[in-house]
Amino acid sequence: MFVIPLIQRKRDGGNLTGEEWRSLVHAYAREEVPDYQMAALLMAVVCRGLEEHELAALTDAMSASGARLAFGPGVPRRIDKHSTGGVGDKVSLVLAPLAASIGIAVPMISGRGLGHTGGTLDKLLSIPGFRVDLTLDEARRQVERLGVAMLGQTEEIAPADRKLYALRDATGTVEAIPLMAASIMSKKLAEGLDGLVLDVKRGSGAFLPALEDGLTLARTMVRLGEERRCPTVALVTAMDRPLGWSCGNALEVAESIGALRGSGPPDLMEVVLQLGCEMALLAGVAATRPEARQRLEAAIASGTALEKLRAVVDAQGGDPRVLDEPARLPQAPLVQDHVAATDGYVATVEPRAIGEAVVAMGGGRQVMEDGIDPAVGLVLHVRPGERVERGAPLATVHARDERGLALALEALTSAIVIGPEPPEPPLPLVSHRVTSDGVKVLA
Amino acid sequence: MFVIPLIQRKRDGGNLTGEEWRSLVHAYAREEVPDYQMAALLMAVVCRGLEEHELAALTDAMSASGARLAFGPGVPRRIDKHSTGGVGDKVSLVLAPLAASIGIAVPMISGRGLGHTGGTLDKLLSIPGFRVDLTLDEARRQVERLGVAMLGQTEEIAPADRKLYALRDATGTVEAIPLMAASIMSKKLAEGLDGLVLDVKRGSGAFLPALEDGLTLARTMVRLGEERRCPTVALVTAMDRPLGWSCGNALEVAESIGALRGSGPPDLMEVVLQLGCEMALLAGVAATRPEARQRLEAAIASGTALEKLRAVVDAQGGDPRVLDEPARLPQAPLVQDHVAATDGYVATVEPRAIGEAVVAMGGGRQVMEDGIDPAVGLVLHVRPGERVERGAPLATVHARDERGLALALEALTSAIVIGPEPPEPPLPLVSHRVTSDGVKVLA
Repeated sequence: MFVIPLIQRKRDGGNLTGEEWRSLVHAYAREEVPDYQMAALLMAVVCRGLEEHELAALTDAMSASGARLAFGPGVPRRIDKHSTGGVGDKVSLVLAPLAASIGIAVPMISGRGLGHTGGTLDKLLSIPGFRVDLTLDEARRQVERLGVAMLGQTEEIAPADRKLYALRDATGTVEAIPLMAASIMSKKLAEGLDGLVLDVKRGSGAFLPALEDGLTLARTMVRLGEERRCPTVALVTAMDRPLGWSCGNALEVAESIGALRGSGPPDLMEVVLQLGCEMALLAGVAATRPEARQRLEAAIASGTALEKLRAVVDAQGGDPRVLDEPARLPQAPLVQDHVAATDGYVATVEPRAIGEAVVAMGGGRQVMEDGIDPAVGLVLHVRPGERVERGAPLATVHARDERGLALALEALTSAIVIGPEPPEPPLPLVSHRVTSDGVKVLA
Repeated sequence: MFVIPLIQRKRDGGNLTGEEWRSLVHAYAREEVPDYQMAALLMAVVCRGLEEHELAALTDAMSASGARLAFGPGVPRRIDKHSTGGVGDKVSLVLAPLAASIGIAVPMISGRGLGHTGGTLDKLLSIPGFRVDLTLDEARRQVERLGVAMLGQTEEIAPADRKLYALRDATGTVEAIPLMAASIMSKKLAEGLDGLVLDVKRGSGAFLPALEDGLTLARTMVRLGEERRCPTVALVTAMDRPLGWSCGNALEVAESIGALRGSGPPDLMEVVLQLGCEMALLAGVAATRPEARQRLEAAIASGTALEKLRAVVDAQGGDPRVLDEPARLPQAPLVQDHVAATDGYVATVEPRAIGEAVVAMGGGRQVMEDGIDPAVGLVLHVRPGERVERGAPLATVHARDERGLALALEALTSAIVIGPEPPEPPLPLVSHRVTSDGVKVLA
């Protein structure tokens, strides 16, 4: 395949045909196009953009490069949820079993941590014995039986996207809205879904901090989904501070279990419930938003959502005793508070610095080959705007060693700023709803 | 070396420091940076450009990656000439011996054909026995003895540029003015020159057809040269039609020999003489332009320029009898005229189509591994604006086989357009002179 003229055309601001994108993705997946040519083309796409028909062809070609989840006629409507990634974002751990407990089928394929953000897979793996490497067939059977499976992207799903994503990660071409949209949707469209809910983060801890970029990504993904008969709704949520209190894999699992027991942090619960309402409405298990919310709250209050998580842990080889005894989760040996150095108001709880601290402590990967220490992380005790006294605990660090402890304490000193005046209010937690009808401002 | 942040910075419109460029070129030459990362960075440079300090650092780093030609104190001032490439452009074959014959030292390192354009090396190689693979030491000694050597880029000169150029050729990143300027000047600055004359082509057959792009490239290269104590002058010349009559390797050698015998095509001679005057002024072998021109014309009239070519051919292993018996050059078996299908005026003699026809006939490379048939090509008999009668010969094709003949005749039919009215005048042959003082319009 002669790729140079295609690179030159995109470089000069032109477009490739759908057939050219299909041939290119096909040839790249078969290793008939070298990485250096694809890298040049991807950078040209970052600089020049993609037309709508190009985006559609690229997404479809990546999606069609692998297998698709296919379900029998008796299975309830399948709805998945995807987040663009944040710090302390344990929404999937709570929402997947919660949604399944009210009759939504959730075939959830999640990712590992990326950059400063955590990943659902890494969190699940902190449960002793838990397997995320289900085959598509295992996942299908588990969804048919339990209503939910939580697994990693297999070799079978969108292999062309896997290969392209690894190249983008190594060539500075991750942060391009059309490439992000195509990558996410190519995988989701292979899951055999009846609907998709997207959590698009904005703020300093998001991959796309600017609201306008987040809305563009949301609109792009909604359009791609709707055009492929997968009704898609996106909520824009705040990532100018971490979500919930805990950041770090086992600590976030413990917080999620608490959330399913009814004691979740209010901000986490609000995001979970609003996304859950969208899933319920798409699935048709509730007719109205208040009804959906009431059913979700009832499932937590009655314990059926927690029991659904127990069934998932059990089915996927994990130790279900962690649900009752969180101390069975990995524990870090060093635990120490970070305290306020002065009286005042919490001005910032900077999510990117906190996410990077967790990675630096060993709780995330600096390169793909790194192992992860599931026990390390930190638990926040304050939110932006709160009044604190000197000496009050702002966060508790859970570290593997003195080096990690020192790194985390240093990061917290810069991440949590105390000022003399109350700060500007933070971003509204759930601010926009994006559907095929357009963007609705919620707050 | 951690390249991704550098790629991201350039992608987002930022700049790399000189030290970053130096480290990057060094690491790439040592194969410590993978091609796919360099390809992404190059495309980001194509899209976002280079700041002046970045261009300087990149040029110097590539130049410093290899050896430099160094001459003893007794050698006359060394001046080279470089062309950005055209069709029928045999200027170097005439100019190198001509300049040497009036006392200018010419260490000329040339390239192979590229795309639709011919290359000086390929032309020289059509002389039976001629060697272009001189070592730098052989070249130095020949320049000291004869005043001129004509060779190819050795492994010793700017190896980082060689590697980067090959990558650019495969990734659609050739046509970027700063990268072109850095590549050309990194090699020329390693030749130990006292001055450099640049022939920047414009028009449909040039790599940069637009005048403004040609002037930008010229100004960039002049600045790079002047800042490195290599006085540099550029002339902008026309490539909206081929230069001279012949296109094809051996055919161009024959025309060049004729030119040194005083029977060259007027357009070729005008470009040769104007570039030669610039070389003479830079070398200080003439005080004024009229004096320089007179000396060059006298060297042709007296035969000393032809004798200089004979000495070069002899010294580099070629058969010097070709100078007296051009029939000793490779001859194509099929020779056929292409004639005018109608009365009228020659509207176009499209150089790109003609260059591509020569390549397609086997006279150039479609991929780097292709061998070249030195005998094939064509000789034009008309110029844009000439009145022709139906049946008059417009060009003579020299082909290896019927397929090549048919290809060439078809290309000529589209390249040479006959219209009912006299066309707009072609571009002025030598239109601009670019020096460190600025751009002077000549015609």
